[in-house]
Amino acid sequence: MEAPTSSVQRPTFAVQCPIPISEYPIVTLAHGGGGRLTQMLIERMFVPAFAPQGEASRNLALEMLHDGAILQTDGAARLAFSTDSFVVSPRFFPGGDIGSLAVHGTVNDLAMCGARPLALSVGFILEEGLPMDELWRIVQSLAAAAKCAGVNVVTGDTKVVERGKADGIYINTAGIGVIPAGVDIAPRRAQAGDLVLINGPIAQHGIAIMSVREGLAFETAVESDSAALHGLVGSILDCAGDRVHVLRDPTRGGVSSTLNEIAGQAHIGIQLNEASIPIDEQVRGACEILGLDPLYVANEGKCLAIVAREAGEAVLAALRDHPLGRGAAIIGEVVADHPGKVVLRSRIGGRRIVDMLSGEQLPRIC
Amino acid sequence: MEAPTSSVQRPTFAVQCPIPISEYPIVTLAHGGGGRLTQMLIERMFVPAFAPQGEASRNLALEMLHDGAILQTDGAARLAFSTDSFVVSPRFFPGGDIGSLAVHGTVNDLAMCGARPLALSVGFILEEGLPMDELWRIVQSLAAAAKCAGVNVVTGDTKVVERGKADGIYINTAGIGVIPAGVDIAPRRAQAGDLVLINGPIAQHGIAIMSVREGLAFETAVESDSAALHGLVGSILDCAGDRVHVLRDPTRGGVSSTLNEIAGQAHIGIQLNEASIPIDEQVRGACEILGLDPLYVANEGKCLAIVAREAGEAVLAALRDHPLGRGAAIIGEVVADHPGKVVLRSRIGGRRIVDMLSGEQLPRIC
Repeated sequence: MEAPTSSVQRPTFAVQCPIPISEYPIVTLAHGGGGRLTQMLIERMFVPAFAPQGEASRNLALEMLHDGAILQTDGAARLAFSTDSFVVSPRFFPGGDIGSLAVHGTVNDLAMCGARPLALSVGFILEEGLPMDELWRIVQSLAAAAKCAGVNVVTGDTKVVERGKADGIYINTAGIGVIPAGVDIAPRRAQAGDLVLINGPIAQHGIAIMSVREGLAFETAVESDSAALHGLVGSILDCAGDRVHVLRDPTRGGVSSTLNEIAGQAHIGIQLNEASIPIDEQVRGACEILGLDPLYVANEGKCLAIVAREAGEAVLAALRDHPLGRGAAIIGEVVADHPGKVVLRSRIGGRRIVDMLSGEQLPRIC
Repeated sequence: MEAPTSSVQRPTFAVQCPIPISEYPIVTLAHGGGGRLTQMLIERMFVPAFAPQGEASRNLALEMLHDGAILQTDGAARLAFSTDSFVVSPRFFPGGDIGSLAVHGTVNDLAMCGARPLALSVGFILEEGLPMDELWRIVQSLAAAAKCAGVNVVTGDTKVVERGKADGIYINTAGIGVIPAGVDIAPRRAQAGDLVLINGPIAQHGIAIMSVREGLAFETAVESDSAALHGLVGSILDCAGDRVHVLRDPTRGGVSSTLNEIAGQAHIGIQLNEASIPIDEQVRGACEILGLDPLYVANEGKCLAIVAREAGEAVLAALRDHPLGRGAAIIGEVVADHPGKVVLRSRIGGRRIVDMLSGEQLPRIC
């Protein structure tokens, strides 16, 4: 063990708030929406605050702004480490609930680092008055999702707050995964010429939630795509190895915000082909009714893969071979033009910049 | 990567709620209090639900009901993994705030596994309307506590819920630590003859919080003992190695509930000597005013160590040599009598059973 580094000294704070208080005096829903304001909070407040001092030890893990951090331990294994809190409303929705979502969300963050999930922690924040049998249903769903994903819940914590101080139940999960040798997934690896793939139709999770909230009725219910993607990611990696450059799940903020993040981090341009982007007709219809652009609607079982061009067809075949990738498609490519920007070529041939989500579109979607 | 194990199948639930609904139809504050009802929730609901099926793979990590789980990775390193959510009210209190507490709580859970902290995740759940500069103060405090403890925040998540759906800010932290070779800390290692030590005066954190809530004024403010204990634990391990049998931080439920947990898990008896238990006079007075038994009041910078008798004096000296252990004392011993029970020998020579906390004494203490 190392020498004692803790003490009872109190830090003093002289640094001004890095978010302009005059413009943003309070936290708003948009700060949690996965778009511009979330990014501002992360980049201006969290990354500088949590960056260790000293030249040699920049907080590379956090700076990568990946879905999870990658750690090198004393042993040989590289570990992925990730966390997510879940505040979805309603707690039960077509295709899932807050329990299964809490497993899928963190398993997917690990998978997007190329990691095989090893263990999960679960932290419950419960509101006094939550029906005990509802907690039991959620716990069973969470446990079933973990078993189904082949990952163990190994540690946990439970807090209860007074009535009115939470909304039934919030769940945090954190996960540890092991990254196999030879896997190197990171935004910086995206390069001009790469292809952009997705494993199926977009916007299902967001529309499943919204249809419950808005009381929309469809011929058949739109179900959330919530699912654990590490098996599918395993198939891609088996097939293409280090020609898989970037993986990311387009959750809050949707496909557009996620690709904008990657474009910004990798200083590359991304060109999307609207006609190639898979979307269910009913979901498209619901988006029109609700005035939502499906490119900004959350997914919980989708994976964007940026792969070397020569591996594109093989990865597409591997995806389509997997139960969670039947509707996979190549939807775009990485270009040297317009670095930092995502451009959509529309069905009728026009081009428009597809920006990051600004403001809050769908609060408490996950 | 392994073969795909995820699928879109939906689990069906036929198992009855393991908590008797007629008796406990809803979640109450006591379910989060660290006492009997918390233990019932963990033992009857969580442990069975999260135990993987199949003989070979019992969920030993969770069953150990330790402060954290111990994982064996493919590499040589044994990892500790732990999580805690923080909902403390008020958010700022003498001696700390929710930010520093969120670091100390999880670092200490890792330390109680004998681990050197490696990395933290942070998940914020923010209430719409939280002043931005208050978030900034908390983030700075959290970052300062992490730096002071020598541990990096490497990944995070931020959710925002509507006004009235949280209480300003809740924070979850999860942590990974590395357990040095030769360290084996576990409740089962406690055995008759062992000595029980603590690193200083009890009940400070709970009284610091309560004095703010109740508006109590003292000659000098009672400060929380909130601190990162891994350095202190390192000193103990350096001094006594595998003669250190159990480590546990007496947080929610206090010294009594924590020792009851250990006694129950190790099937041993514990005898405490009231006159040896260090307590500040002002804290004792506040407990009397508030009608609280200090043995049940939460600590956030205290460590109970159960060590082989022959190592007792050396460990005591090592503790007193550390800034966070100046007030250390040997407070009791492990006995073969009354397994599962903690018995207090009072100042006047009487004996009484000191039970686990039942009901909720101090909601939202951490």
